[in-house]
This record gives sequence, C-alpha cells and structure tokens, in this order.
Amino acid sequence: MKTINERKTIRKYSNREVSTAILKKLLSEAMRTPTMGNLQLYSVVITRDAEKKALLAPSHFNQPMVTEAPVVLTFCADFNRTTQWALNRKATPGYDNFLSFLNAATDALLYCQTFCNLAEAEGLGTCFLGTTIYQPQSIIDTLQLPHLVFPIATITLGYPDEDPAQCERLPLESIIHEETYTDYSAALIDCFYHEKENTPENKHFVEINNKETLAQVFTDLRYTKRDNEALSKTTLEALKQQGFL
Amino acid sequence: MKTINERKTIRKYSNREVSTAILKKLLSEAMRTPTMGNLQLYSVVITRDAEKKALLAPSHFNQPMVTEAPVVLTFCADFNRTTQWALNRKATPGYDNFLSFLNAATDALLYCQTFCNLAEAEGLGTCFLGTTIYQPQSIIDTLQLPHLVFPIATITLGYPDEDPAQCERLPLESIIHEETYTDYSAALIDCFYHEKENTPENKHFVEINNKETLAQVFTDLRYTKRDNEALSKTTLEALKQQGFL
Repeated sequence: MKTINERKTIRKYSNREVSTAILKKLLSEAMRTPTMGNLQLYSVVITRDAEKKALLAPSHFNQPMVTEAPVVLTFCADFNRTTQWALNRKATPGYDNFLSFLNAATDALLYCQTFCNLAEAEGLGTCFLGTTIYQPQSIIDTLQLPHLVFPIATITLGYPDEDPAQCERLPLESIIHEETYTDYSAALIDCFYHEKENTPENKHFVEINNKETLAQVFTDLRYTKRDNEALSKTTLEALKQQGFL
Repeated sequence: MKTINERKTIRKYSNREVSTAILKKLLSEAMRTPTMGNLQLYSVVITRDAEKKALLAPSHFNQPMVTEAPVVLTFCADFNRTTQWALNRKATPGYDNFLSFLNAATDALLYCQTFCNLAEAEGLGTCFLGTTIYQPQSIIDTLQLPHLVFPIATITLGYPDEDPAQCERLPLESIIHEETYTDYSAALIDCFYHEKENTPENKHFVEINNKETLAQVFTDLRYTKRDNEALSKTTLEALKQQGFL
C-alpha cells in the first residue's frame, strides 16, 4: 500500500476503459473487509450507462465527475438481502431500526474504503462524493433501492487524467488522544490549524470569498448551519422511508 | 495490498509490543483517506493502560481482546475540533445535527479502514468491534468524550498469536447490481446462501444452538429484534446527549 502516501482525489479521467474483469476483481477482494457477523450488510450499484449517470448527477450537485467518469459506484447499507434470507428460512428478522442502519452503514463504508485503497494500488483514481446522503431519496428512486437499502457513499472511478497537488492535512497530534480525550485550547487550535490557514490555496480561498477567516468559508458558504439542518431533515425522512427509523 | 486476500480477524495477540513509532506512522499515513472538505472529522483515542482497558471491556460485552490486546483504538466521529476552530475564528458553526453526525461518522469509518489495511500490510492483526455503538454512553464516559464527539468504531491491535481459518464470504454476484437494484427472489437467495449454509462450522453452529436454520441463529440469538430495538434507543439517546440530534 505504498500508494497511500501519494494518494490524491482524482476528478478527471482518461478514456481508458475500466474493464469488468478488473472491477469485479477489486470488488471481490474488498469483500475481505470485516463485516458484522459475516453478514456483509452492503450492496453496490454499478453505473456505466450515460443516461443513468445523468439521472444521478443532480443528487450530487451536478459535479462533472458523475457524468464524465467511466464508472460510478453507489455503496449501500443493505439489510434487505439478509432480511429476505431470514424470511426464506423460517426466521423472524428485526432489522428495521436505527441500530441496524448504523451497522449496515458501517459495513458499507468499511467495504467502500478497502475497495478504494485496492483500486488506487491498481493505478485507478477515485473521487469520494459526500453528497450521497444529502438527497438520498432521488438516488433511491434512480437506482430503485428497496426497503432496508440506503445509499451511503458514492465514488467515481477511472484512470487518472490529471495529477493534482496533494492537499495539506492537520498534524497527527491534532487527531490523537492518549487514554482520554483532551479538549482543544485556543492555543492548541492556533497551533494545529496554522499550516492549513496559511497555504497559498487556502489564503486565496478566503480572499476570493471575501471572508475574514478560512473557518468562515466553511461555516458561511460550504457547510452552513441552515443547509445542515435542512438536509438532516431530508436524510432522516429518507431513512424513515427506507424502513430504518 | 496483497495481504487483503489472506486477511483474517485476529483476536489473540503475542507479547510483542506495538511501538509508538509504528502506531503513529500508520495513523499518520491513514490520514490520506478522503475526508469531507478536508476537515478530518475524526479523532482516535489510544488505550494502552490496563485500567482503562478494563473500564472499556464491559461496553464490548467483555470480549477478551479488549483487555488482552496491547492497543485498543477508539475511532470517533468528531465535530468538536472543527467547532472549536470555528468559534476561535469568528465563524458560526452549525454541526449539532444528524447530517453532521453522518458526515463525521463517515470520515471516521473510512479513516479506520485505511488504518486497518495499512496495519495488516505491516504484519499487525486487528479485530473490529461492532459493539462500539451498542452502549456508547459508557465509552463516552470512560474516554471523556465531549459534546460533538461520538465513538463509532473500536479495533484491538497487536501482532498475531493465532492463524485462524478464513471465513467464507457470499459470492460477489450477491452484492453487486448493474445499473439498478435487482431484488432477491427465493431462488437467488438459495443460490447465494448455499455455500454459507453448508460450511461445517455453520452447520455445527446451527446444531449446537438447537436451531432449524442458520438464519435463525442470527435472528433469534445473535442479532435479535428485541436487542436491536432496545439498543437503537440507547444509541439515539447518546447521539442526543453528544449534541448530534
């Protein structure tokens, strides 16, 4: 996994096809990821069809990768298959609840990440779309996801046609806590965010958005309280619709 | 990542110490995992202290790995650090809601899985404890997790002192769907679960539990409707307590 140190999100893909053989090999190998009770509480919908990509695009705020990538993968928390299995085996399933959603979402996200690590080791590029849980209902409709199936992650996949710079990350010390959680003093915040706040890209970002601080770009423009609260409602509504609440 | 094909959960660890240098190297490399808006919405609490392990053990149903492993890592969805940063930068954070919990949980789980992939490539063994979200409040208390921090995954870590057989997995065809989700007919369920239901281990499992089918072992004993519903309540209560609902 030497590729991890050079890892970058790839949003532009070459014309080189992603063969079904490679895709299936990677999806199959990733199944070694741990999973609750070995139940594999996930499904993946593979989108290659241009029309389907166009239908998915609005759910992802029309980010161009969705229609331009050769492959779009939607990873779903899936308790439907296990429930069908139980119903066919004289067993009474009880997975229409919030804990079961979290269990299946966990399975799906771990599986997705191993898949991405494997794909990148194979020379493929990925872009993780966090938008999947923002407007899940339209994804559910497009992919025809039944009761107890919920889209939790989407990635676009293809061979890279760009070589962007790596993003900065916070220092490791900012995310680890020894034995108990140590809360962040103002001095520690200054120290941990200093590098991030001073990259030329982030300084530029603050300037073009006419803000005073980088944090304001996030709270006022990118991830606002208002949007988060509105989208929390649609996400919870979709969870209820799919039978998990 | 050749190790993925031989991957097994490791529950018994040798006396060989996991050095701080190795641990930090792996935690640091894993930070290349994609993260929402490059905010790194996760924290990791490192437990090496025997007393702290003993305090964590009941939350994990006293599974022996928790006290026996040299290292226990609790991966947390963390919007506290980002919120503190915002508050210190004249910005108004809005992350005390369900969508923000899901965003941070996603970040933490993806990060956790890359860490595990890297650790296993390095010769370490891991066991993923799904119990973390069952009784989160006692973990929150033990690790002193503040508002907007929620434990989402725990792994035990160490050098392997066992070489268990690999578990079976479902056939790849059972988890992938081309373009749209195809629901499972009884015939497909039979086909996809045939191998799983017929391994000697699983047959033995059914027998010693005095059940008619393997699915009943799951629905009646391991993951029951009653437990799932009760634990959904405690999990939602803890989410509320930590400020995410």
